[in-house]
Amino acid sequence: MYFETKEFLKHISIDSVVFGFHENQLKVLLLRMKKTNEWALPGGFVKKQETLEKAASRVLKERTGLNDIFLKQFSVFSDPNRSRKNPAAKELSDPGSNSSFAWFSNRFISVGYYALVNFSQVEPTPDFFSDRCEWQSIDEIDRLIIDHNQIINKALETLRLQLNYQPIGYNLLPPKFTMPQLQKLYETLLGKTLDRRNFQRKILSYKILNKLDERKTGGAHKAPYLYEFNLENYQKALQNGLYGGW
Amino acid sequence: MYFETKEFLKHISIDSVVFGFHENQLKVLLLRMKKTNEWALPGGFVKKQETLEKAASRVLKERTGLNDIFLKQFSVFSDPNRSRKNPAAKELSDPGSNSSFAWFSNRFISVGYYALVNFSQVEPTPDFFSDRCEWQSIDEIDRLIIDHNQIINKALETLRLQLNYQPIGYNLLPPKFTMPQLQKLYETLLGKTLDRRNFQRKILSYKILNKLDERKTGGAHKAPYLYEFNLENYQKALQNGLYGGW
Repeated sequence: MYFETKEFLKHISIDSVVFGFHENQLKVLLLRMKKTNEWALPGGFVKKQETLEKAASRVLKERTGLNDIFLKQFSVFSDPNRSRKNPAAKELSDPGSNSSFAWFSNRFISVGYYALVNFSQVEPTPDFFSDRCEWQSIDEIDRLIIDHNQIINKALETLRLQLNYQPIGYNLLPPKFTMPQLQKLYETLLGKTLDRRNFQRKILSYKILNKLDERKTGGAHKAPYLYEFNLENYQKALQNGLYGGW
Repeated sequence: MYFETKEFLKHISIDSVVFGFHENQLKVLLLRMKKTNEWALPGGFVKKQETLEKAASRVLKERTGLNDIFLKQFSVFSDPNRSRKNPAAKELSDPGSNSSFAWFSNRFISVGYYALVNFSQVEPTPDFFSDRCEWQSIDEIDRLIIDHNQIINKALETLRLQLNYQPIGYNLLPPKFTMPQLQKLYETLLGKTLDRRNFQRKILSYKILNKLDERKTGGAHKAPYLYEFNLENYQKALQNGLYGGW
């Protein structure tokens, strides 16, 4: 594996926040940088004949093994000193380093994408600059390089806003799930607990769920019912919002 | 006025779609390019020590005279051949041109912003590359340079989606307005007519309007009532959506 800087556009990078949901925890995919042992988001640069979307998909395919991840561009991070604020980035851009690392001393405006993926299908794979790639729970993430904590926070803020008008959960939950599981996902994304009855009433009013004639097995005698998403209505709600259009 | 390319980052540009509402028409601010007479969005480049937001504000202050325009980043346009698809851009990047124009032969990834502004406060002002700056009605815009028609369409698409969950109209309408004026704004943004009674019922249910004890003057004997936005509720609805949060 080799990193050839002249293949890429100067001054533009991409960073992706990949969310997964596992054992009732919201997880983010992170990499550990070889030289500094600090953690970072999966990201990369844009080839001279490549769209941004293509670059983001290429990088995430390499990191996760997944094709066709649905990526949403949510913000652009352009503080001129963003990479200089962090000792890890400074270390990376040390002129004594090899030329691949010196590339990092350029100013990069980073375009942020987020993705919601099926946790169990991901095969975390490090890149050229890292020696580890793994999921970390959102509430256990330490200080990341550059402004990557800020990028995660902004992605989460965007998701929280979208929870008010768009459905969520497909991809993050298994095909069949219980109401408590869905509520836990919402609670984790929102960072607060919700009233059980209000949640159920509201989420059912959107008509995006099919209640199955089936209960979760292996539980107590009052096992909760299973649900699945009504994909037709789910897609419509993604298009027009949960409350419909004008 | 002078355009010094070495002040700017390579490969990154910004383009802004500035919407205004005047005489029941949705307008977009456009510039006419000096060399080709083709029309373009107001845009520009990013200085080496400037954030994207700062660059977008700087450019729009120059084009409109307005400070503190609220700009929203909505998409990034990164087709590697976007600037080559258009004869006007080709002409601009002709090597026989002076060096300012040759700058345009670089590949630029353009970050799109949109703004909703008070039509009557804008003083349209051309830039270095243009000889005219003026408002054009959205349904009368001809073929623009590069992918600027696509940028406008994408901005409009984003606005239409937001109409389903966020309030709109502050800045675009005068401080006091009638229900028919507000409906016309929605119809213009959506590109379709709406039922008068349903519109009124729905918009009033959001509690973002104050009905004034005052009718539009100078009209027929059944002049419509005037409304103003309830700014506290309007701001809340911008934050949490028209239907409130979880």
